[in-house]
Amino acid sequence: MILLAPSILSADFAALGAEVAVAEASGGDWIHVDVMDGHFVPNITLGPPIVKAVKAHTSLPLDVHLMIEHPERYIADFAAAGASVITVHAEACVHLHRVIHQIKELGLMAGVAINPATPASAVREVLEDVDMVLVMTVNPGFGGQAFIPNTLRKIRQIREWAAEINHHNLRIEVDGGIAEDTAGLVAEAGADVLVAGNAVFGRPDRAAAIQAIREAAEGAVR
Amino acid sequence: MILLAPSILSADFAALGAEVAVAEASGGDWIHVDVMDGHFVPNITLGPPIVKAVKAHTSLPLDVHLMIEHPERYIADFAAAGASVITVHAEACVHLHRVIHQIKELGLMAGVAINPATPASAVREVLEDVDMVLVMTVNPGFGGQAFIPNTLRKIRQIREWAAEINHHNLRIEVDGGIAEDTAGLVAEAGADVLVAGNAVFGRPDRAAAIQAIREAAEGAVR
Amino acid sequence: MILLAPSILSADFAALGAEVAVAEASGGDWIHVDVMDGHFVPNITLGPPIVKAVKAHTSLPLDVHLMIEHPERYIADFAAAGASVITVHAEACVHLHRVIHQIKELGLMAGVAINPATPASAVREVLEDVDMVLVMTVNPGFGGQAFIPNTLRKIRQIREWAAEINHHNLRIEVDGGIAEDTAGLVAEAGADVLVAGNAVFGRPDRAAAIQAIREAAEGAVR
Amino acid sequence: MILLAPSILSADFAALGAEVAVAEASGGDWIHVDVMDGHFVPNITLGPPIVKAVKAHTSLPLDVHLMIEHPERYIADFAAAGASVITVHAEACVHLHRVIHQIKELGLMAGVAINPATPASAVREVLEDVDMVLVMTVNPGFGGQAFIPNTLRKIRQIREWAAEINHHNLRIEVDGGIAEDTAGLVAEAGADVLVAGNAVFGRPDRAAAIQAIREAAEGAVR
Amino acid sequence: MILLAPSILSADFAALGAEVAVAEASGGDWIHVDVMDGHFVPNITLGPPIVKAVKAHTSLPLDVHLMIEHPERYIADFAAAGASVITVHAEACVHLHRVIHQIKELGLMAGVAINPATPASAVREVLEDVDMVLVMTVNPGFGGQAFIPNTLRKIRQIREWAAEINHHNLRIEVDGGIAEDTAGLVAEAGADVLVAGNAVFGRPDRAAAIQAIREAAEGAVR
Amino acid sequence: MILLAPSILSADFAALGAEVAVAEASGGDWIHVDVMDGHFVPNITLGPPIVKAVKAHTSLPLDVHLMIEHPERYIADFAAAGASVITVHAEACVHLHRVIHQIKELGLMAGVAINPATPASAVREVLEDVDMVLVMTVNPGFGGQAFIPNTLRKIRQIREWAAEINHHNLRIEVDGGIAEDTAGLVAEAGADVLVAGNAVFGRPDRAAAIQAIREAAEGAVR
Repeated sequence: MILLAPSILSADFAALGAEVAVAEASGGDWIHVDVMDGHFVPNITLGPPIVKAVKAHTSLPLDVHLMIEHPERYIADFAAAGASVITVHAEACVHLHRVIHQIKELGLMAGVAINPATPASAVREVLEDVDMVLVMTVNPGFGGQAFIPNTLRKIRQIREWAAEINHHNLRIEVDGGIAEDTAGLVAEAGADVLVAGNAVFGRPDRAAAIQAIREAAEGAVR
Repeated sequence: MILLAPSILSADFAALGAEVAVAEASGGDWIHVDVMDGHFVPNITLGPPIVKAVKAHTSLPLDVHLMIEHPERYIADFAAAGASVITVHAEACVHLHRVIHQIKELGLMAGVAINPATPASAVREVLEDVDMVLVMTVNPGFGGQAFIPNTLRKIRQIREWAAEINHHNLRIEVDGGIAEDTAGLVAEAGADVLVAGNAVFGRPDRAAAIQAIREAAEGAVR
Repeated sequence: MILLAPSILSADFAALGAEVAVAEASGGDWIHVDVMDGHFVPNITLGPPIVKAVKAHTSLPLDVHLMIEHPERYIADFAAAGASVITVHAEACVHLHRVIHQIKELGLMAGVAINPATPASAVREVLEDVDMVLVMTVNPGFGGQAFIPNTLRKIRQIREWAAEINHHNLRIEVDGGIAEDTAGLVAEAGADVLVAGNAVFGRPDRAAAIQAIREAAEGAVR
Repeated sequence: MILLAPSILSADFAALGAEVAVAEASGGDWIHVDVMDGHFVPNITLGPPIVKAVKAHTSLPLDVHLMIEHPERYIADFAAAGASVITVHAEACVHLHRVIHQIKELGLMAGVAINPATPASAVREVLEDVDMVLVMTVNPGFGGQAFIPNTLRKIRQIREWAAEINHHNLRIEVDGGIAEDTAGLVAEAGADVLVAGNAVFGRPDRAAAIQAIREAAEGAVR
Repeated sequence: MILLAPSILSADFAALGAEVAVAEASGGDWIHVDVMDGHFVPNITLGPPIVKAVKAHTSLPLDVHLMIEHPERYIADFAAAGASVITVHAEACVHLHRVIHQIKELGLMAGVAINPATPASAVREVLEDVDMVLVMTVNPGFGGQAFIPNTLRKIRQIREWAAEINHHNLRIEVDGGIAEDTAGLVAEAGADVLVAGNAVFGRPDRAAAIQAIREAAEGAVR
Repeated sequence: MILLAPSILSADFAALGAEVAVAEASGGDWIHVDVMDGHFVPNITLGPPIVKAVKAHTSLPLDVHLMIEHPERYIADFAAAGASVITVHAEACVHLHRVIHQIKELGLMAGVAINPATPASAVREVLEDVDMVLVMTVNPGFGGQAFIPNTLRKIRQIREWAAEINHHNLRIEVDGGIAEDTAGLVAEAGADVLVAGNAVFGRPDRAAAIQAIREAAEGAVR
């Protein structure tokens, strides 16, 4: 089942409670939260206090994407703030296997993300351990960037490996440049969690926007 | 003239636009914005995209306190987001004099902050250059901590030095544990910009809260 | 030939001289020394002065596993302290090929270690250069953790590559969760240096413990 | 077409203008410039001011090899100084895809370099994006080191991948230990930009030296 | 009252239990433990597992001197291992006031150390907060170095400040080159905890050595 | 005696040998060499290979100013390259006293530099140990910046301290914005080594330029 995760990076940060409520009412499945520390990526966005505030306004799972160095230091804080899914970057973790289990021991879903230039082999050794792989389809740091088509190859590779090890529940998430025109491509390649920022929050009718992306994705895999 | 700067660290992050509008209507002079990167301090709060969103909801000057490493890399972003005052930490700047002038060249007020353990001498060589010194009255990183009385000594020292060099417009800001009971102490010592978090946003009547702190401070220096 | 390397991480640090003497008398082949710097791994254990003190109490080769950042800065110190084998982590070395040859030029055996999440490809380009690959079978940092079975795949892969390049003397070491029940698995996969901590020093009869592990390993490859 | 790129790391640094003029007159195709920051590699060589000075003395393209951490901070400076090609290390870039496009957006050729121990897979995901891959044939940091033959395998692998994706213009550069005796080996494996330091600047007749290397390379691929 | 703290940096690391027992029997007051991480100082010594092992062999307070970066990450581990006093370096702590209170909240004595080149002003703002100041009388990193006489000036300055603020229980510790010939100098200047390494563990009769240092110190202040 | 040290940062980097020869012939006393690593300062200039090349073209002492992090790692390289004076930044050295003696043990003059915002107290504890203090009169990183007059206060303070401790041979160097108009100010305050970049190499008649600066300085102290 395809999940749609509107990203609050494109929402109105002055009214996040209302924004996530609308996203939920408009049919979003998860709320995607982009955490940036200004070190792993060249932007600073938000941290645990904001996640906690957002949590109070939605019953949807919070899908927290940590674009930070040393994520192991903040896992507990984001869990306490209300995260349901925590994803860390392979490039940020010398002890990736340990961090994944640190997340899982808190009862959360654990994801691992890779940048556009990072080969799929960077997640192969933890594929049995994670609930989700996030294949970045743009370089992380900012909203509004164009989809990088070469990343489709990695999505296919990871879906193939997942099949080989019988990890049929593995979620593959994509983030960056996802809209009606790209949703089908990523879904066909094997992605089943689609993060959408501008393509949802930048549209006047968010329910229609979410519906359109979902249909494009589901149409491609039907 | 004493300035009151309600800190959004204690506001409702799900409704920042409304919160700063209330702070303005309640008599706040500046809006204090606590930026933390999870590296300089053990917490991540918010960055330029949130400052920009807040800016749209208030006509008050945004007083941006950068608790981040390498602040020189983000000065331009915070200026573009709408900051009126940018304060950097002396402990975070090997080239403090350069960063201060980087801020001033953008037409903003420039401040320098020091942690509770940092001696006043850390800002002495740039006192002629800055518009403001921020004397942290708690360890930065979290709201709701208790005021550290020994910091009064540094406030007095800095005010004394400012008088010696005829820098009569120098603002001295305090941040941490400021409320009705401590406002008089810091004002008497020489502080004239008072950041208040819980003591404003944690109270039902924010106008009354601001008024009470202001009176306590003004009473002490009358 | 299978080698057994009791790890002093599980020995009594108040009597290391006696402990290594017992390990030698009990049939250990190498003494495994876990060096941690609190940066590469979240624990600090010991450094050159302790290696030197240990060296005086055993004629066995000291097998020094550097779980430290920038190992190139300490190779000479550990060599001078009496190491016979020095292993560095692929994740800690931007110039891995250079560090390996730095070790070999001192006349020592050179090893390269990989964490559970690190793919075998991280050592492929230096396989002709090293004397040993250490496949971590737990996340490094602490004793007493459970064996991670997925690491067997990497042991097999590395043994296969070694055969392809006719590097028949390549040692493959395993460290973490090795005891009677896992020794056969790793030996069958291709490992021939088995580090054991609790499974040796945590047992009353260390000679019997070593013998049991050795037999389990040798039984699997006979 | 094979390109010869004399490296100024082996030139007389007291007379760089004259040295590059001679290199040009002697038949060099590019001038190779080795930038080292003392952090990514254990040596400090030169930066933008020297590149700019060199640029004034040659009409050849400057081929700038950045052996520095965080190269994204200096791309603009080296472009302004006159670089035609900028190569960054895969090991130094968490956001490698972004840096490559940062170079290309300035109108320059973009290269990605890998150390001897780094697998070819580190560049596979950006192979469609780069103009050149630099396979280091020694450990970067110093001139005058011996060629590492195992690197030929990576050259072949990358050339093969380039063919698969129809990237027929992809340049493969080699740097380290390139002279008459190794030029044929690397050219046969698929390299077509040969950096030579001592083998050019260390010889009395530089034109003859360049010619000899070129012939050895061209002979191998004819 | 002068306290003598034999430093295990000069003890036999192969028999630490016996060594500390002898130090206790010989009249030592505290056991001084030098923790080095190879980052703050250019040496790696020992960490929590060794502190814990030592603790079992002495009833003396363990005086743990952390020559490590980011000591706040290891305070809890050293407390759990049995430390009675924990000293951190001012040069290693951006939030020195917070770390000191982190130590005190665990019920331990808190100290702050300064290197030979660090001015006394670096500890002035926390003088009311600490139980001890450690004035390094050599550059930390190795045993057996010569006492630096200029450090006496800082000892006097700190003792003077302590008197001004009525902190009569403040301990001033000295570490490096302390022996019979220097004990009187530091005691006269105001030090009252003397760390001695070689001057105790390097002597055949440790009780006599401790006694001699103690008498030299007490004689100077009588 | 006032010393003039033309800085090669403003020379023609394409002809350094000729430039330093001219500087020597024009009456320069020392050749000032600005080493920048792109980490301590936001520019990369040059390192040991260029110092070595320059050395061959002048008999003047090379006065090497290390604007680099961890200078202790490169002291030996710069000494071997021909430096006569090596100056390190107080802001870059956790173990400043050790680095100074590392320089002196190689038989060189040792200097310590401070940035414009750094208080003079940062060098007070090593004043007895150094041969020179370099008071930066601009923020280090680039040539051609304007002199910061507040730095005069620090020059006076350091000269005063030097007198108090009878360190009459202490050199005080100034670097940044030194020309005919500022030379008298710094000399009067106590500086006796004047670095001049543009004010020498940017003038057609370098001998006249040096002479003019020298006369301005000497005139002020006569």
